[in-house]
Amino acid sequence: MSIFNAQATASIQICRIMRPDDANIVGNVHGGTILKMIEEAGCIIGTRHCNTQNGDRCVAALARVERTDFLHPVFIGEVAHVSAEITYTSKHSVEVQVNVLSENIVTGAKKLTNKATLWYVPLSLQNVAKIIEVPLIEYSSPEQEEAGKKRYEAQKLERIETKVRNGEIIMSVSLPEPYTVAFSQSSLIHLIGPSDCTLHGFVHGGVTMKLMDEVAGIVAARHCKTNIVTASVDAINFHRKIKKGCVITVSGRMTFTSNKSIEIEVFVDADPLVEAEKGKYRAVTAFFTCISLDKENKPLLVPPLKLEGEEEQKQFEEGKARYLQKKAKRLADKECQQ
Amino acid sequence: MSIFNAQATASIQICRIMRPDDANIVGNVHGGTILKMIEEAGCIIGTRHCNTQNGDRCVAALARVERTDFLHPVFIGEVAHVSAEITYTSKHSVEVQVNVLSENIVTGAKKLTNKATLWYVPLSLQNVAKIIEVPLIEYSSPEQEEAGKKRYEAQKLERIETKVRNGEIIMSVSLPEPYTVAFSQSSLIHLIGPSDCTLHGFVHGGVTMKLMDEVAGIVAARHCKTNIVTASVDAINFHRKIKKGCVITVSGRMTFTSNKSIEIEVFVDADPLVEAEKGKYRAVTAFFTCISLDKENKPLLVPPLKLEGEEEQKQFEEGKARYLQKKAKRLADKECQQ
Amino acid sequence: MSIFNAQATASIQICRIMRPDDANIVGNVHGGTILKMIEEAGCIIGTRHCNTQNGDRCVAALARVERTDFLHPVFIGEVAHVSAEITYTSKHSVEVQVNVLSENIVTGAKKLTNKATLWYVPLSLQNVAKIIEVPLIEYSSPEQEEAGKKRYEAQKLERIETKVRNGEIIMSVSLPEPYTVAFSQSSLIHLIGPSDCTLHGFVHGGVTMKLMDEVAGIVAARHCKTNIVTASVDAINFHRKIKKGCVITVSGRMTFTSNKSIEIEVFVDADPLVEAEKGKYRAVTAFFTCISLDKENKPLLVPPLKLEGEEEQKQFEEGKARYLQKKAKRLADKECQQ
Repeated sequence: MSIFNAQATASIQICRIMRPDDANIVGNVHGGTILKMIEEAGCIIGTRHCNTQNGDRCVAALARVERTDFLHPVFIGEVAHVSAEITYTSKHSVEVQVNVLSENIVTGAKKLTNKATLWYVPLSLQNVAKIIEVPLIEYSSPEQEEAGKKRYEAQKLERIETKVRNGEIIMSVSLPEPYTVAFSQSSLIHLIGPSDCTLHGFVHGGVTMKLMDEVAGIVAARHCKTNIVTASVDAINFHRKIKKGCVITVSGRMTFTSNKSIEIEVFVDADPLVEAEKGKYRAVTAFFTCISLDKENKPLLVPPLKLEGEEEQKQFEEGKARYLQKKAKRLADKECQQ
Repeated sequence: MSIFNAQATASIQICRIMRPDDANIVGNVHGGTILKMIEEAGCIIGTRHCNTQNGDRCVAALARVERTDFLHPVFIGEVAHVSAEITYTSKHSVEVQVNVLSENIVTGAKKLTNKATLWYVPLSLQNVAKIIEVPLIEYSSPEQEEAGKKRYEAQKLERIETKVRNGEIIMSVSLPEPYTVAFSQSSLIHLIGPSDCTLHGFVHGGVTMKLMDEVAGIVAARHCKTNIVTASVDAINFHRKIKKGCVITVSGRMTFTSNKSIEIEVFVDADPLVEAEKGKYRAVTAFFTCISLDKENKPLLVPPLKLEGEEEQKQFEEGKARYLQKKAKRLADKECQQ
Repeated sequence: MSIFNAQATASIQICRIMRPDDANIVGNVHGGTILKMIEEAGCIIGTRHCNTQNGDRCVAALARVERTDFLHPVFIGEVAHVSAEITYTSKHSVEVQVNVLSENIVTGAKKLTNKATLWYVPLSLQNVAKIIEVPLIEYSSPEQEEAGKKRYEAQKLERIETKVRNGEIIMSVSLPEPYTVAFSQSSLIHLIGPSDCTLHGFVHGGVTMKLMDEVAGIVAARHCKTNIVTASVDAINFHRKIKKGCVITVSGRMTFTSNKSIEIEVFVDADPLVEAEKGKYRAVTAFFTCISLDKENKPLLVPPLKLEGEEEQKQFEEGKARYLQKKAKRLADKECQQ
């Protein structure tokens, strides 16, 4: 098969239809969707090329992407075609050049939407710290090889420069002390897409709860540094609807720890972005209780929460009251059953 | 077929195999995955029931979930069975009770993992502000109806209480002024799951870039309140690998605005959670340039950035230099082509 | 609960709401989404049944899907109900019959959209090369058993006969003329991730079928420039397993057009990337039949295929023979029912 002969390990084509979840609310495909496809093509061709010789098996790891322009918007229903080829190899790196074309399969119109250059380094599957030697490609002319070498030297220089610059970043913000509320608190933002919504165009309650659970799990894992599972969720009221196209911020912070459980309060704030006059509003709040498990799925002791200030003290007391109430209810239920 | 007779509108069963993406790194299925399935079952049965009469068509919207316990962990490869039935109806709400069983289809073991109670309100598809009247269900005994009524009254009271409490929350934090850097800055956290990773267990560069683009888009949309598309991405270097199970924080803040473009700096910080001794580290940084489009996909003027303090002033100047440099290069490229 | 008594291991129901990402741009749910749900139901019931005895634990691997018709389009917001039961067992294989109903939970309308028959082979979890013995099911009558045996013998014969077809898709650089085979042919590439796979680490048959349907839809849309839905899939044999980490190339090309239908041949080639010495292999081939719909979901005339060369002429004749055979069978079935 022609695409599989020796030479053809040097090129690949990926395509797929752009779906509603790939795009924003007015139908423009996110640049990130395209970047992800570009990198998938690069990873496949790079990995394939570096495994065409004997020795250690490897996977191509992305080291650098050159500056990329998005020349035309892509829309839902169009097919994005990503074609990648290997254009230069050094001893330890592979240059992949990628073109993206969007095709409107209904009108037949095609547009060049991106050109990108990616650099990969092959890491051994046996030992991730080891970089494999790259099989060299052949060039159609000495000029082509020379141009590749120049690109290689230029990016190498830039990589060294930014490495030095980044090395200086020692997390500028002073990190809060471990085991405090501030240390583990976390938040995520999520743009409500079409597949998150009902026929009305409002988010499914289940989608919101899944994100809330995700944040609660991360907060607890930051505190405990162990395997975390959700043990219970207190009653949740959904007072206000959240519309397609909103950005939601889901934030969690610890309120209480018992010996073997952690209570986390989770807030969901909705921001209608485009209808700015409506303003941000709090859509949902809830308390999640998590436990920390060892390798046999047995509960572990939880490091106690270090409280800072009156507000945290007050919330801890309230959390304790909820904890004792639930415990009492559990005991009462057990007695009923006997 | 039995599931479609009149009575059977009152029960439904959903099941599916738990996949690696539904679970954390040691194979425990996320509580959020289960909560999402529970709510899907509730939404189907509630919507179906409220449309069994003439008049406006509607969709059941989740109003409340009662306290829920996770009795046993669920694992990858098990089948989660969610069965839901309608257990009470008031004039404007539907109570759905849900059981979740996990089945290990290889050993045959089955466990009850959750019991949940959800309250739905049917909203008209023609007019979302309108709540439809709920067709009443029949009860097997007056005691059963009485018990349902008690649950209904209890939750109604609690919903009113939390509504009052939440009404008082007028976004306690004083919001930053519009068009400042602080106003639009955003960050998200993401737990690196199996599908984000290569065979090595390190995150695909494309996954990181997609999240970076998502944050850049949200920052720009918060500033402009319009339709945003990515115009270009500066060179990105991937100095440090990010492992499966890490939590990454992707943060974006505006650095520069020209007449028709916005520059956003995006940072990716990785936190290995469980291997805490390694500490958080900055894995990637990049500059994204976005533009704001009108309904005909033409670029709009961008509201100028309000700078606060010397640091922001300095970053703006640097952004301006990058902008002018790119502009000069574009012009030079054009001349070359002529 | 009834689903867990002894007998009930022989039936299962899966359902979920169809989301925007399950459908094309005009809201028709992709045939591939339905095929994937069908296969998930079959895999659950098959795996569960083959583990009801002592001995090696196993997972049911899809070996063959009989010809499947899509009787009615399914739309976003509808609930797809997939019910599967085991209808025949031989020493080493399990026959699962599946019905798919679509339910519009807003209007209450229900339609039978698919009937499918799948054959599974149980592979040991300890040693994937080993096929487990299947526990035999009981039949309600000797006639029922006899009919099952006939189906078993018939498919066995066909599986032996169907050698993996070979063909290659050469992406031409110069733009081909509209309505030729070369004009519409397409291929996509997918890297097999963990959530695509069974506990063995082999790809679910349903994942493969979904991608095949996606390619068939793109090929047909390129030819017709209209809204395309899948009308039927000919029997598919799964000759070779595909492992996690493989890259699969799914390619489609038109073979035949009647007045109102298009036949597309789809190939799946697997490339183990890191185990390059194993080489690429053809894993699956199948014929999909698509139709083109207008805005009222009525079938449109299909532009005839322009044939180039003897090979295409020969394939067209073979496609025509399949088409006429199916048509004759449909007529015969109708007469039987009268």
